[in-house]
Amino acid sequence: MIVILKETACEQQIQALRNTLTAQGIKLHESKGEQSHIIGLIGDTKSLDIDSLRADPAVEDVRRVSEPYKKANRKFHPADSVVDCSGVLVGGGHFAVMAGPCSVESEAQITEVANAVKASGAAILRGGAFKPRTSPYSFQGLRADGLELLRHARTQTKQPIVTEIMNTEHLHLFEDVDIIQVGARNMQNFELLKELGKIDKPILLKRGLSATLEEFVMSAEYIMAGGNEKVMLCERGIRTFETSMRNTLDISAVPMLKKMSHLPVIIDPSHAAGLSWMVEPLAMAAIAAGADGLMIEVHNDPAHALSDGAQSLTPAQFDELMKKVTTLVPIFGKTLETL
Amino acid sequence: MIVILKETACEQQIQALRNTLTAQGIKLHESKGEQSHIIGLIGDTKSLDIDSLRADPAVEDVRRVSEPYKKANRKFHPADSVVDCSGVLVGGGHFAVMAGPCSVESEAQITEVANAVKASGAAILRGGAFKPRTSPYSFQGLRADGLELLRHARTQTKQPIVTEIMNTEHLHLFEDVDIIQVGARNMQNFELLKELGKIDKPILLKRGLSATLEEFVMSAEYIMAGGNEKVMLCERGIRTFETSMRNTLDISAVPMLKKMSHLPVIIDPSHAAGLSWMVEPLAMAAIAAGADGLMIEVHNDPAHALSDGAQSLTPAQFDELMKKVTTLVPIFGKTLETL
Amino acid sequence: MIVILKETACEQQIQALRNTLTAQGIKLHESKGEQSHIIGLIGDTKSLDIDSLRADPAVEDVRRVSEPYKKANRKFHPADSVVDCSGVLVGGGHFAVMAGPCSVESEAQITEVANAVKASGAAILRGGAFKPRTSPYSFQGLRADGLELLRHARTQTKQPIVTEIMNTEHLHLFEDVDIIQVGARNMQNFELLKELGKIDKPILLKRGLSATLEEFVMSAEYIMAGGNEKVMLCERGIRTFETSMRNTLDISAVPMLKKMSHLPVIIDPSHAAGLSWMVEPLAMAAIAAGADGLMIEVHNDPAHALSDGAQSLTPAQFDELMKKVTTLVPIFGKTLETL
Amino acid sequence: MIVILKETACEQQIQALRNTLTAQGIKLHESKGEQSHIIGLIGDTKSLDIDSLRADPAVEDVRRVSEPYKKANRKFHPADSVVDCSGVLVGGGHFAVMAGPCSVESEAQITEVANAVKASGAAILRGGAFKPRTSPYSFQGLRADGLELLRHARTQTKQPIVTEIMNTEHLHLFEDVDIIQVGARNMQNFELLKELGKIDKPILLKRGLSATLEEFVMSAEYIMAGGNEKVMLCERGIRTFETSMRNTLDISAVPMLKKMSHLPVIIDPSHAAGLSWMVEPLAMAAIAAGADGLMIEVHNDPAHALSDGAQSLTPAQFDELMKKVTTLVPIFGKTLETL
Repeated sequence: MIVILKETACEQQIQALRNTLTAQGIKLHESKGEQSHIIGLIGDTKSLDIDSLRADPAVEDVRRVSEPYKKANRKFHPADSVVDCSGVLVGGGHFAVMAGPCSVESEAQITEVANAVKASGAAILRGGAFKPRTSPYSFQGLRADGLELLRHARTQTKQPIVTEIMNTEHLHLFEDVDIIQVGARNMQNFELLKELGKIDKPILLKRGLSATLEEFVMSAEYIMAGGNEKVMLCERGIRTFETSMRNTLDISAVPMLKKMSHLPVIIDPSHAAGLSWMVEPLAMAAIAAGADGLMIEVHNDPAHALSDGAQSLTPAQFDELMKKVTTLVPIFGKTLETL
Repeated sequence: MIVILKETACEQQIQALRNTLTAQGIKLHESKGEQSHIIGLIGDTKSLDIDSLRADPAVEDVRRVSEPYKKANRKFHPADSVVDCSGVLVGGGHFAVMAGPCSVESEAQITEVANAVKASGAAILRGGAFKPRTSPYSFQGLRADGLELLRHARTQTKQPIVTEIMNTEHLHLFEDVDIIQVGARNMQNFELLKELGKIDKPILLKRGLSATLEEFVMSAEYIMAGGNEKVMLCERGIRTFETSMRNTLDISAVPMLKKMSHLPVIIDPSHAAGLSWMVEPLAMAAIAAGADGLMIEVHNDPAHALSDGAQSLTPAQFDELMKKVTTLVPIFGKTLETL
Repeated sequence: MIVILKETACEQQIQALRNTLTAQGIKLHESKGEQSHIIGLIGDTKSLDIDSLRADPAVEDVRRVSEPYKKANRKFHPADSVVDCSGVLVGGGHFAVMAGPCSVESEAQITEVANAVKASGAAILRGGAFKPRTSPYSFQGLRADGLELLRHARTQTKQPIVTEIMNTEHLHLFEDVDIIQVGARNMQNFELLKELGKIDKPILLKRGLSATLEEFVMSAEYIMAGGNEKVMLCERGIRTFETSMRNTLDISAVPMLKKMSHLPVIIDPSHAAGLSWMVEPLAMAAIAAGADGLMIEVHNDPAHALSDGAQSLTPAQFDELMKKVTTLVPIFGKTLETL
Repeated sequence: MIVILKETACEQQIQALRNTLTAQGIKLHESKGEQSHIIGLIGDTKSLDIDSLRADPAVEDVRRVSEPYKKANRKFHPADSVVDCSGVLVGGGHFAVMAGPCSVESEAQITEVANAVKASGAAILRGGAFKPRTSPYSFQGLRADGLELLRHARTQTKQPIVTEIMNTEHLHLFEDVDIIQVGARNMQNFELLKELGKIDKPILLKRGLSATLEEFVMSAEYIMAGGNEKVMLCERGIRTFETSMRNTLDISAVPMLKKMSHLPVIIDPSHAAGLSWMVEPLAMAAIAAGADGLMIEVHNDPAHALSDGAQSLTPAQFDELMKKVTTLVPIFGKTLETL
C-alpha cells in the first residue's frame, strides 16, 4: 500500500501518521521528491482501512498495490481449480454446458426441456424456482414447488441441477440441489454469501450488473473465506450506456478473471444481450476467449414463457448451437463434459 | 403498450398474435404505414410479459407507454407523501437531517456523536450495526450489539434512529428501530423488500449503484404493494466511468423522482463522493434541487473510524454545515424538522 | 414514430398538433385507451425533429419505431458490403488483418515492423502519423513525415496502408493513403465526416468511447450520405465502470452491427483492453463472434515505444497469434486475405 | 510516479529498468516488501510514457501520484482565474448567465430572444451557427450566416456572444466572436484545441459525454499550453446507464474541478437533462454547488425550434428562472454580472 502525503502536511502530522502505522506492525519506506512525498507500507496491510487512512490530516491519497483477495487469488494457487458438480467437472480443461428454462413452469415443461437439452449435450440442467423480478406484479416463480419439479426432472435425466437462491431462510430447501446459484442482484448480499461459505456444495456466483471484476472476486472470497472453495464465476452482461440490447457482455472478463483467479469462469450469453438470436455468436466468442462453460436458456415455447421469453432458444435452436459448441470446444483445448 | 411488427411477419402470424392478445382482454388499435406496422394495446397490460411478447415470431419490438408502478406513481397520488418517523416528518415541505457515524463502534462513540449532531440540529440519528463490506476481512459491524447501543443513545437524545437491515432473518431485531434502511446493495433483494412490505414502519430505501430510476421506484413499489406505504427514497451516488470520486451524485434524480413519485427524496452526500470536503457543496445542491432531507456521516475521530473515515465529517464540521442548511432550507420553501 | 399524449392535454391542443403534423404530409393513426392516448405517425418522419415535438404542450413523449439511418441500413441492402482496399477485400466472407505500430517512429522501425507483419500474414499495414494524445506534453506523431515513411514502407511490402486523419485541413496529405482511419475521438467530428463523404477511398471509422451503436452507424451514414459508401466499422472498446483494463470490448457489437448494417465490422483488440497479453483471447473471440477483420498493434520494441507500448505485441507474439487466426477464420466460414 | 515490479522479475531485468530510468535523470527510491517490490520515481516524470513503462518485462503496473496538468492546476495557481469576456467577468466571485437559442434560425428569432434574455438579466448571448447533429438529415445550422445574425443581434443588445466552432478551417469566421465554444463532441479534437491555444480569446470548453474530469482538464491544458489561458470549463451532463433523461448532470464536477483547477466552471442544465422543466432545479443546484455561471437555452417558440426544442425555456420561463438566480447567487457569495 502506498500513502501519498499532502504537500501541506507538516512534519508533526507526518510523524503522528508514522507512529500510528508502525504501531500496527507496518514497516515504512519513504520517498520524498520535489513534487511528492510518498510512504510505501510493507507488511500485512489487509487489516488497514483505506478510507480511514484517507481521513488522516497528512494524507492526500492511498493506493493499494496488492490484491485484497487471497483464497481466490491465482498468485497463491497457480493451477486452475476444477469444481466437481455431482460428477460433472468444470474448469481445468473441463467445459460444461448448463441449459434449461428461465423459470420452472410445470412438470411437463421442465421434463420436456430437460430431456431435450440432455439429448443435445447439456450436462447440467438449469431452471429457476425462486425468481428475482423487477416488478412485484410479475410471475415470482413456483418457489419450493419449482425445486420439487427440478428434482423430479433429475430423476429422469440424471443431470445435476443448478437453481438460484434468494434468501438465507430458504437454504434448507436447497439441500438436495447440486449447484446453488447466486444471482447478479445478490452478488453483494453478504449475509447470503457468508451462509454459502459454510456449506459443502458448488456455488455458481453471477457478477452484479455494475460490479467491477475485483468486487466480483471479493464476493467469491466471501464464500471461500467461510470454507467453501467450490465457487464458479459467471459473467452475464454488465450495465453500460448502450441501449440496443439489455446488457453488454464483458468478454474481456474471461481472460482477466483467469489472470486474477484460479476459479472456473462461465458465460451466460442469454442474459447478456437478452436476445435469442445473439446467443450463438456470444457463445462462440465465450469459448474462443477461454471460458470453462456456458449457461443457456432454453424453453419449449418461448412466446408463452412466463419469463425471459425473448432470450430463450427453442430446443431445436439449442441443438444447432450444441453442434457448433461440440466442434469448437476441443479446438481451444478443452473437453466437453457429457453425461 | 405498443407492439412493432416485423416487416417479414405474414398475415397468419399476425392473426395468431391478435388472437393471443384479445383472448387476454386486450383491445388492439393497428397503424400500418409503408415502413412500419404497429399495434397499440389498450387495457390492463401490466400482466403481459414484454419478453415473451418479444419472442413472438411476428414481433420486432415492444415498447411500454405507461409506467409499470402504481402505488408509488404520482399520477395516481398527486400530493406529496409525508412520512412520520416517530414524530419527525419527512416530505411535503418537511425537511429532516439524519446524521451519525457510518458504524456504531462503542457506547462512548455513539453517545458522543448522537449528542453532538442533535446539538447541531439533526432530528434523526443514523448508525450502522450490520455493515455490508466489500471484503470479508473488513470490520462487519457490531451487529445486534450495535442496535442495542443505538437504542441506548436514543434514550439520551430522543432522536428516532435509522439503521440498515441486511437479511430477513434479522427482522425481529429491528422491532424497536424507528426507520429501517435498505442499503444500495440490497435494493433488489426482493425477498427482503417483500418482508418489509408486511410491517408498519418507515423504510429508507437506497438506490442501487447502477439502478435506473424506474427500477428504484419499482423496488419501492415492492414494499408498497405489500401494504407498507411509508417509503423514503435515498439517492447516494451512482456508478459511472468517473474515477476522481467514489460515485457520481445523480442530482437530477431529485426532480425526476419527484415527477415520477409522491414519495420523499433524501440525498446522502457522504456516500455520493466518498470525500468529506465535498459533503457541503453536495448538501447545498441537494437542498436547491428540491430534496426532502439529508443523510450525513459524522464521526468523532474520522482518521480512526472503523469504516468510511474518508467521507465522515467531524462534529465541528457538521455544525458548520448545519448553519448553512438552516439558512438554505427555508429559502426553498421547506421547514427544517427539529426535536 | 409514435407520439404519446399527456393525460392533461385538452382537445384544442391535440387538434393543433394534428394540424401541424398533417400539414407536413404525415398520416395519423390514433389509439385512445383508458390510461394512454397515442398517435402513430405514418409517412416520411425523418425530417421531424423529435425534440421539438417533445416540446409541444400536448406531448408526453415521442418514440421512434424505424431506424434513422438509410444508406447504412441492412433492411435496404440485405447483402454484406465488400470494401476493396487497394486489392485487399474486407467483408462478405473476406477477413483481413491490419497490423503495425501505434506510431510511426522512424524509417527503420516502420520498415522492420511492416516486413515482419507481412511475413506473418497481415494484408494491411497500420501506423499512426497524426496522433491524438490526451496530454499536450506527449509525443504527437511524426505527422506529414510519418505519412511519408508509411508510403516508403509500402514500396517494400506492397501492403495497403491505413492511418488516422485528425483534421480536414490535412486531407490533401492523405491522397496517396489507401484507407483513411477516423479515430474514436473524432467519430462525431461531423465536419470531418462530411469531407470524407466527398472522396472515393475506404474509411475505417472507429466507434467513440461512449457512442451507442445507433450513433456509430449514424456517423457512417454521414460519410455515406455524402456519396462515399466504402465504410468499415471498427469496435475498439467502450468506456464502462470497470477499472482493471483500459476499455471494455463490446463483443456483442459484432452481431448487432451486422444486424443493423451491411458494412464490414473490424475489431481492434489492442486498444480494447490496452494489455498485450489480452490481445489473443479477444482476437479469437472477435473471429468467433463474426468479425470481418482485426486491427492489431505490433512494435519491434514495446518497452521503448513512443506510444501505447503496453498493448503492443512483438513481431514474434504476432506471428504466434496469426497461426491461430489462420486456423480459426475458415472454421467460421471466412477467407483470410493475404497478399 | 510509482512502478510496481512483477514478483517474477529477475534482478537482471530490474537492473535494466533502473538503468533506463536513471539515464533519463529520474531518481529512484525502492521499497521491497514480502508481497511487493515498488520503485518510486522522483523528478520530472511528465515526459515518461506510462504505457511503454508498463510494457517493460519487469513491470507489473505503474501509478501516477502527481497530476499530469500544470497550467490548469490549482496547486500552481491557488487563486481563482477570472476570465474577461469582452467586459463580462466570469470566475473569482463573478457569476454570469449565458442564454439564447440552441440554433440561430433567423434575424427575427435571434433578435427577439436576445432582447428577451437581456431584459431578464443574461449578460452573454448564446446561439449556435455551426451545429453538430447526430443525423446528417437534421438541420445543420445557418453556419456563416448564423454568425452574421449573431453579430447583428449584438449591435442591438451589446451582449458578448458565445458560439460553437467545429473545425479549424472556420477559425477566420470567428474573429469577431467574443467567446468561442468547443462542443462536447470536440473536447478531444486536439488539432482544434491547439489552434485555439494560439489565439487571444476566451474559450468555453464543454466536457465530453464520457470524459473523466482529468481528461477534461487535460483538454484545457492543451489550449493553455499553446498560450491562451482564458479557458472556462463547462459541465453539460455525462453519459450513464440512466434512461429517463438524456444525460446525467455531474454536479460533483463543480467542487472537484475547482479543487483540481483555478479555471471558472459553468453548468449547462439545458443539455444535462434535455428537459425544459428540469432546468430550474438543476440551475439552482449548480449555484449551490459553487458554479461560476450558467448556460441556458431559450427559444421564443420551442415547439417549432429547429433543434433542441424539448430542453428550451420560453422567454417567460427564463424570466421566472432569473428571478430565482438573482436571489440565490449572492447567498453563495457571488455577484451576478449584468450589462
